[in-house]
Amino acid sequence: MIGGCTTIGLVQMAMGVDPGENLRRATQLIAQAAERGAELVCLPELFLQRYFCQHEDVRHFDLAEPIPGPTTEALAAVARRERVALIVPLFERRAPGVFHNSAVLLAADGTRVGVYRKMHIPDDPGFYEKYYFAPGDLGFPAFELAGRRVGVLICWDQWYPEAARLAALHGASVLFYPTAIGWHPHEKQAEGAAQREAWRTVQRGHAIANGVYVAAANRVGHEPGPTGSAGIEFWGSSFVCDPQGTVLSEGGEADEQVVLATVDSSRVEQVRRHWPFWRDRRIDAYADLQRRFIDE
Amino acid sequence: MIGGCTTIGLVQMAMGVDPGENLRRATQLIAQAAERGAELVCLPELFLQRYFCQHEDVRHFDLAEPIPGPTTEALAAVARRERVALIVPLFERRAPGVFHNSAVLLAADGTRVGVYRKMHIPDDPGFYEKYYFAPGDLGFPAFELAGRRVGVLICWDQWYPEAARLAALHGASVLFYPTAIGWHPHEKQAEGAAQREAWRTVQRGHAIANGVYVAAANRVGHEPGPTGSAGIEFWGSSFVCDPQGTVLSEGGEADEQVVLATVDSSRVEQVRRHWPFWRDRRIDAYADLQRRFIDE
Repeated sequence: MIGGCTTIGLVQMAMGVDPGENLRRATQLIAQAAERGAELVCLPELFLQRYFCQHEDVRHFDLAEPIPGPTTEALAAVARRERVALIVPLFERRAPGVFHNSAVLLAADGTRVGVYRKMHIPDDPGFYEKYYFAPGDLGFPAFELAGRRVGVLICWDQWYPEAARLAALHGASVLFYPTAIGWHPHEKQAEGAAQREAWRTVQRGHAIANGVYVAAANRVGHEPGPTGSAGIEFWGSSFVCDPQGTVLSEGGEADEQVVLATVDSSRVEQVRRHWPFWRDRRIDAYADLQRRFIDE
Repeated sequence: MIGGCTTIGLVQMAMGVDPGENLRRATQLIAQAAERGAELVCLPELFLQRYFCQHEDVRHFDLAEPIPGPTTEALAAVARRERVALIVPLFERRAPGVFHNSAVLLAADGTRVGVYRKMHIPDDPGFYEKYYFAPGDLGFPAFELAGRRVGVLICWDQWYPEAARLAALHGASVLFYPTAIGWHPHEKQAEGAAQREAWRTVQRGHAIANGVYVAAANRVGHEPGPTGSAGIEFWGSSFVCDPQGTVLSEGGEADEQVVLATVDSSRVEQVRRHWPFWRDRRIDAYADLQRRFIDE
């Protein structure tokens, strides 16, 4: 049955240089979430590594691994042991020269339920993802996990209303956003508050427009960049909001922690009945959303 | 030339029973805005009338008028006198049995620049708009007004990311939302804060996702409903936010007033360069946005 209540947990963590250590730390935080009642836990984007996209280095492709692979095996065992479903973001090696920024969905019995491959790939100073990741080719599906339909979108996807809408059209009632977003330290004082607020607001907007829960899991901590760069200070602030955009639970800016919230299908039903946006979409008038820009 | 700075004004007003009096009051507030520097002023949705959609009454079709018609004539004269461009929402009579919830754009010389017809039509207890208004058939265009490209969307449209995106794809750098939204008095205490916050948040989200200014002009005041109904308390809170979603200027919940802000093309340019969302839209993967729902 799809429905009822599910307790979800977001792992907010700081990544060290050792992937094995990051895996151990993630495992501890998953256990902590499960102990506190979580039935579905989401890790942050690329949780095994420091955010290597701060510069372009061909050796970093060695960090990628296949699906299934050692990390999905290890976490399938964790899922079974803790009896918790997992969303596991990782650097996917699909074929020589074909790499993706992906997330694997594991059921509580360790079964692989599906894979999402990040569709919108950023490229900014300090976020050179277009070098590492081919754009996803699996669309914006929803998956059945922990007794409900969920969408998984990754970081840069969170700025795109189209992505949220499509996952919701596939029936997702919760959208997860594993994330690695932070401040350039020299911009933090002048721009930091507005940047983080924009990140939070646009995702709350997706919750409202679609009548879905939104859950974003971000990393924390400063990670040094290449020589001459000030690195990135990841801003944490992982949160869950309800289908009206009300924040239910939220992490701090700097601490490792587990953020928990309960999502409830009857709340989705109620909000969508009272605010029947879905009924009135003008699907006859949306074709131009497939255009890059409409030149006059 | 499209660009530079423009001061915009939103008229937040309370409507009485007499359309002539509402027109006079709107004219006063336009003059006040122009005196304070506004070059482009937007009136609230259906500003000539109390919100007659609180019930279905065939006599209310008498309130509609053609475009051009007496109201566009009167306000073209106001535009010329005050040297201000205007966005004038009105109940449009297009043909017998064909009525729209529309907005007319008038240049500062009184020229009619275009018409927008509300595309998404609500129908809720107390908001029986599907009875009065045929859905718009002009899409989500942008118009050149007061030296810049603007989009005009009306009230219920504000919940649809597709509408905001399409107007922005047509080149709009400011989206205006003439609005008539408020509380059912019996819901206000329990739900009011969350409802208004959701309304504000989803529109700020459109600003962020599209790198545009958003300007919403709402009415204020309690308007009685039909017998047995508590009426609607319109919540004002007209606001302008910038392309990062930061609120620049905002009206109160209950007072008539003019809300002013300056919009700046260089700010649009700057935000879109630093947060290049437009570049990475996956237009190859958005076709299903034209579906009502995706059954599995």
